[in-house]
Amino acid sequence: MSKVVLAFSGGLDTSVCVKYLQTLHHLDVITLTVDVGQDDDFEEIAKVSSELGAIDHVYINAKHEFLNDYVVPSIKANALYQQKYPLATAIARPLIARKVVEVAKKHDAIAISHGCTGKGNDQVRFDIAIRSLDPNLNIIAPIRDMNLTRDKELQYAEKNNIRISDVAKKYSIDENLWGRAIEGGSLENIENEPHDDAFKFVQQSNNEAGYITIGFERGRPVSIDGEKLEIDSLINKLNKVAGSHGVGIIDHIEDRVIGIKSREVYEAPAALLLIEAHKDLEKLVLTNQELRFKFHVDDQWAWLAYSGLWLDPLLTDLNAFIDKTQERVTGEIKIKMHSGSYRVVGRKSTFSLYDDDAITYMSSSKFDQRLATGFVTLWGLQSSAANKKIWEYKRQNGKI
Amino acid sequence: MSKVVLAFSGGLDTSVCVKYLQTLHHLDVITLTVDVGQDDDFEEIAKVSSELGAIDHVYINAKHEFLNDYVVPSIKANALYQQKYPLATAIARPLIARKVVEVAKKHDAIAISHGCTGKGNDQVRFDIAIRSLDPNLNIIAPIRDMNLTRDKELQYAEKNNIRISDVAKKYSIDENLWGRAIEGGSLENIENEPHDDAFKFVQQSNNEAGYITIGFERGRPVSIDGEKLEIDSLINKLNKVAGSHGVGIIDHIEDRVIGIKSREVYEAPAALLLIEAHKDLEKLVLTNQELRFKFHVDDQWAWLAYSGLWLDPLLTDLNAFIDKTQERVTGEIKIKMHSGSYRVVGRKSTFSLYDDDAITYMSSSKFDQRLATGFVTLWGLQSSAANKKIWEYKRQNGKI
Amino acid sequence: MSKVVLAFSGGLDTSVCVKYLQTLHHLDVITLTVDVGQDDDFEEIAKVSSELGAIDHVYINAKHEFLNDYVVPSIKANALYQQKYPLATAIARPLIARKVVEVAKKHDAIAISHGCTGKGNDQVRFDIAIRSLDPNLNIIAPIRDMNLTRDKELQYAEKNNIRISDVAKKYSIDENLWGRAIEGGSLENIENEPHDDAFKFVQQSNNEAGYITIGFERGRPVSIDGEKLEIDSLINKLNKVAGSHGVGIIDHIEDRVIGIKSREVYEAPAALLLIEAHKDLEKLVLTNQELRFKFHVDDQWAWLAYSGLWLDPLLTDLNAFIDKTQERVTGEIKIKMHSGSYRVVGRKSTFSLYDDDAITYMSSSKFDQRLATGFVTLWGLQSSAANKKIWEYKRQNGKI
Amino acid sequence: MSKVVLAFSGGLDTSVCVKYLQTLHHLDVITLTVDVGQDDDFEEIAKVSSELGAIDHVYINAKHEFLNDYVVPSIKANALYQQKYPLATAIARPLIARKVVEVAKKHDAIAISHGCTGKGNDQVRFDIAIRSLDPNLNIIAPIRDMNLTRDKELQYAEKNNIRISDVAKKYSIDENLWGRAIEGGSLENIENEPHDDAFKFVQQSNNEAGYITIGFERGRPVSIDGEKLEIDSLINKLNKVAGSHGVGIIDHIEDRVIGIKSREVYEAPAALLLIEAHKDLEKLVLTNQELRFKFHVDDQWAWLAYSGLWLDPLLTDLNAFIDKTQERVTGEIKIKMHSGSYRVVGRKSTFSLYDDDAITYMSSSKFDQRLATGFVTLWGLQSSAANKKIWEYKRQNGKI
Repeated sequence: MSKVVLAFSGGLDTSVCVKYLQTLHHLDVITLTVDVGQDDDFEEIAKVSSELGAIDHVYINAKHEFLNDYVVPSIKANALYQQKYPLATAIARPLIARKVVEVAKKHDAIAISHGCTGKGNDQVRFDIAIRSLDPNLNIIAPIRDMNLTRDKELQYAEKNNIRISDVAKKYSIDENLWGRAIEGGSLENIENEPHDDAFKFVQQSNNEAGYITIGFERGRPVSIDGEKLEIDSLINKLNKVAGSHGVGIIDHIEDRVIGIKSREVYEAPAALLLIEAHKDLEKLVLTNQELRFKFHVDDQWAWLAYSGLWLDPLLTDLNAFIDKTQERVTGEIKIKMHSGSYRVVGRKSTFSLYDDDAITYMSSSKFDQRLATGFVTLWGLQSSAANKKIWEYKRQNGKI
Repeated sequence: MSKVVLAFSGGLDTSVCVKYLQTLHHLDVITLTVDVGQDDDFEEIAKVSSELGAIDHVYINAKHEFLNDYVVPSIKANALYQQKYPLATAIARPLIARKVVEVAKKHDAIAISHGCTGKGNDQVRFDIAIRSLDPNLNIIAPIRDMNLTRDKELQYAEKNNIRISDVAKKYSIDENLWGRAIEGGSLENIENEPHDDAFKFVQQSNNEAGYITIGFERGRPVSIDGEKLEIDSLINKLNKVAGSHGVGIIDHIEDRVIGIKSREVYEAPAALLLIEAHKDLEKLVLTNQELRFKFHVDDQWAWLAYSGLWLDPLLTDLNAFIDKTQERVTGEIKIKMHSGSYRVVGRKSTFSLYDDDAITYMSSSKFDQRLATGFVTLWGLQSSAANKKIWEYKRQNGKI
Repeated sequence: MSKVVLAFSGGLDTSVCVKYLQTLHHLDVITLTVDVGQDDDFEEIAKVSSELGAIDHVYINAKHEFLNDYVVPSIKANALYQQKYPLATAIARPLIARKVVEVAKKHDAIAISHGCTGKGNDQVRFDIAIRSLDPNLNIIAPIRDMNLTRDKELQYAEKNNIRISDVAKKYSIDENLWGRAIEGGSLENIENEPHDDAFKFVQQSNNEAGYITIGFERGRPVSIDGEKLEIDSLINKLNKVAGSHGVGIIDHIEDRVIGIKSREVYEAPAALLLIEAHKDLEKLVLTNQELRFKFHVDDQWAWLAYSGLWLDPLLTDLNAFIDKTQERVTGEIKIKMHSGSYRVVGRKSTFSLYDDDAITYMSSSKFDQRLATGFVTLWGLQSSAANKKIWEYKRQNGKI
Repeated sequence: MSKVVLAFSGGLDTSVCVKYLQTLHHLDVITLTVDVGQDDDFEEIAKVSSELGAIDHVYINAKHEFLNDYVVPSIKANALYQQKYPLATAIARPLIARKVVEVAKKHDAIAISHGCTGKGNDQVRFDIAIRSLDPNLNIIAPIRDMNLTRDKELQYAEKNNIRISDVAKKYSIDENLWGRAIEGGSLENIENEPHDDAFKFVQQSNNEAGYITIGFERGRPVSIDGEKLEIDSLINKLNKVAGSHGVGIIDHIEDRVIGIKSREVYEAPAALLLIEAHKDLEKLVLTNQELRFKFHVDDQWAWLAYSGLWLDPLLTDLNAFIDKTQERVTGEIKIKMHSGSYRVVGRKSTFSLYDDDAITYMSSSKFDQRLATGFVTLWGLQSSAANKKIWEYKRQNGKI
């Protein structure tokens, strides 16, 4: 029998897929679970796969690849889709797609399968990444192809003795080191505040203000409070500390690639803190020209990554721009956290363009204010001239 | 003797200006104080003016003009310069310039004067607005023209018996209903957190989480918790409530128009809350196309207003765009505040484009997921094709 | 029997559609031809409709609506998709859709039909406009639904005695007052120059250079060589004169909405001339700030109109911006035409911001060059500072 | 006596500068002429320098540096300031500044001098480049510092026996391999066509249409009609051939950095042809996402280079982006030229994303049109939904 490789989380959607692939498509199913830092019981997932009758199960630890090649570029790009969402799920998808393609090639599979619905963004990210990596592989998306819904899936699961966790019955969750997305259930009512049981990283235990100092080298976070840390430890630590201060919840209305508006709830303490710190550092070391343009590059980067176009050459082009700007993004940022709030309160850098000799209002200043007279005159030249023309016109036409 | 009208706050800079205008320029000085909601003792300011020998003092209450014509458009534009600063001082300047020009014309003054330094943004805003309103008036900026510094001014003030308040000796402050800017002193050290004595609006007295619901009509805030309020009461109330939750402090590195980087500290509780709420409402009612483009319009609006180009025709053009988008920006936004943090937790609107029938993962959904198959294929067509070409090229050239 | 209204040109695609709607969908067909200035024999089209068995044929002259509400806004927006294509077909589609919906309502039709393929842009423009105007009408697109191709259509036409013109066998053409699109046949080979037989407007008969002066009022073209003309006469005249000078051919690679790259050949003499003249006039009267931002607004406008999003609220928002800018776009532009080339050689306007007193290098100039010293110093402040930091860093790290 | 190095063209402005530097600043003058392909008599320039009493004259041939490091990046960036001006003078200035700084260091000069006025762009380009390269060197700009005008300079020249050519009396010209700028005289009247005597490259001798094929490798032009050529020969040849067809004149209203509007006349046959060809090739090989974003990058690049910010780190950042995109910009473009007009008529590339199998309307097509149905539905989802809301609102409020 021909083989299919299924991206497998052990949850409702992908469990149902195994059965459908076997019974409807008559394929041998190989399940693949890619570890991008989700807090899952991977042995249990393997067991579920076996119970479902998969002919093989593959586990790949891709945490370092995820952090270095997907998360760090996101930090450099200050990536927040629609100024809010740090893209945790969005950037994990092309990585998982890459692994699925590799496993499919290794096992001579004729198709790839994923459990995405036809309403979300992940189908876009999976399909386009797969087609960009190997246009010859078929893609089977059972949930989308059969227009399945959660209630029908639950029925099907019950009928076929597929085990589903209690949480999965309440929310649809995706998690990795960079953040956690919570969907479904009561969250679909956009007028209501999310219940506390939706969150895991953010568990406020500390009501006092706290401080943390993050060090960056060429745009990459490298230390906390002066201590050098590997990227995974650093992010874990930030998730923990910031989460204990109640920092990290996101709740907004989001435009999905396919055109639907959704209400999305995320938690991403480390991501929010790192991007805020990184942005402030950039303001210190990049020129005004660089900042103003990078603002648009960053927005485009987040939009592309969100929209399933991770492998479009444009993302690589944007990364070339961003990496060039990061050469001077080295320094330390001090942040104050308090009951959900976080704010930069201090910063320093060798590449700082802040010049206190120029800025000070004291006589020590080397800046000659008279230079400004010429600047201001020329800066406003056309504004004033246009207003003069408008006045003249109104006067001549009896409008004033 | 010829007359000059001086924009007068009663502080160090403008008090020194009165003397200089009299002694150096041999002009009769008329002082003008424009009330844009700063919490000042206007009788005291009039007294100071008289003591300094001004021939006349004018007080103009421009609060409503400020709120309706300057603050409300800022809300519609989600105006945050460099994503942080709500422009309180920046948008008050062109209004004050307008009043100074009016008073100058009424009193046949030959010149206008302001106390701006040559290092800041306000000179740019004043000069360009004045020249756009009346290119024939001379502008005298004594602090800039003589390259004066605070220490020299303080000496001069002492020698000339000019009274200076204690706060003015510590910080340089500008305040109005939309926010408060604090500069100078210890804040010039960018590594240090601002001291608590810098703040007035933000005085955290409440350690519990609190909720507030803001109603908007066509982009304009009109109610709090269901109660209709005039714009000045509404903003006052928000400043008070949000401030009591510790919400409203801004601390970032800012690029001034004239090219200097400065560290700026502001407090603006109402502004931050209103803009956050307004943005979330826009995400609910504007199309994805509108949101993506308005993001750039808003950025440009803030940049123009900050840069002294309030009277450039482009700002009027942008307002035409923005006003058109606001026709549907009507609804209510619920915000949670807690120790400096604020977050939208609920929203509703007649013009909501959120469609729970489409979004739900339940069978009630009217959305046919199979539509997505065609979308995804075409959406990624060129990305995949480009990757195919790149692979072929690499293969042919032995690079893989 | 239920009724369908079909947008009908009398060409291959729509003739085939009549038959399919009758035989496959069992619908009574009402054909509608909308006159947007195409040089067609409308009586002949009515006859074809009748021969095909349509139960009714409607002709609507929409030339003035097309010119005033679709073409003039395009001129104000300098609309050239991908900097080349003046959108003649693209902007006619939403107008035709509007008429089809009106006729469908009037005749109680249950569906609307068009002859667009699934590869082009017009399906996008028709479908989205129709759904935006009346979401309850069904849309039937026989060519797309049955994945028909030209050769199959020609066979089907022959078998069903459908008359097809000789030109239609060679090229697929769409024409209106604003331009003519030529597709198919030899043009699909992107390495070859289009044959002369593809063109109708552009028939070079004049080898000498010629001049023409176009007058604008608030962005709208109103006169030629000083003579006031109605918009249709004006465009007709420009098409004729410019065409006789060989001006108006466009040949480029275009990105269709659905992601396919195509080679597109157009002729649009009036459009190219008017947009070139309009742009030059804007450079004379708009401020540098307006020009730089409108450049992006214009690009977005063209992209939206091209992409079938004419009825997205964003287009209306952009028009509000553009109309505001056009208040001063009044003046005259002189153009030189010669064997395909066209170039502005003179311009004047009451609202001109060109100031020869400032610009002249003669002593009469009122401009004090010394103002520039301060401007230049501040303009380059951060660039120089950043370079200094980079040098210092390199020196300290032994890199130079 | 201390030394100054003067960027010297031998024309009116710089000749006058030599005298002023000697008599007013009491400096020994070293003149430097940088060869960027201008068609000048360099021996004659050396003689003029000597006659004026310069203590030394330096000639540097920088043609290759100019072409490789300044012109080729301009082509890759499709650099046209305000969509018209190919930046010939603008990009030569930072190169000349670099050479002047090098010569100043070598000769222990204390200052650098240039003959720029305070009204133009070149002062901005020179000053900022010099300060970015060596902030310790003084800059003396006699024409600007003394607010000199051409008539006063001519008088001064006569009085001091400074030789001035006849052309220089008529126009102010700047020339290099990439283009020629003509200013002053009758051109200051914006209503008039430039006289033929203003042009040198463009001398139409050929009234027939002609063809030329330009080959690119990674964005760099490398061949003409299949023959590999060095970049200088290639540009020379294009200037000659295109010029003989009347191609290359530019005439538009331009916004100078300092805020003045000017009318600028240029000739740049090779530049216009190369950029047009390069753009068309990019449309063939870059993805729609890349094209749409690069359009903004290119615009920013041209703006920066024009505005004297060549050495701002942003330009280097943009180059990193652009270079990445150019990896696939390899292919051949065929252009037709005729009496001033030029138009791409054919193109090919290994990296072509044009897929005739998809595009053709014939049955051989592999593209299934039915995919488009889903695409179109989702593409217009929010536009239609927004219109529905607007209709509902109007209906409820009795507006329709």
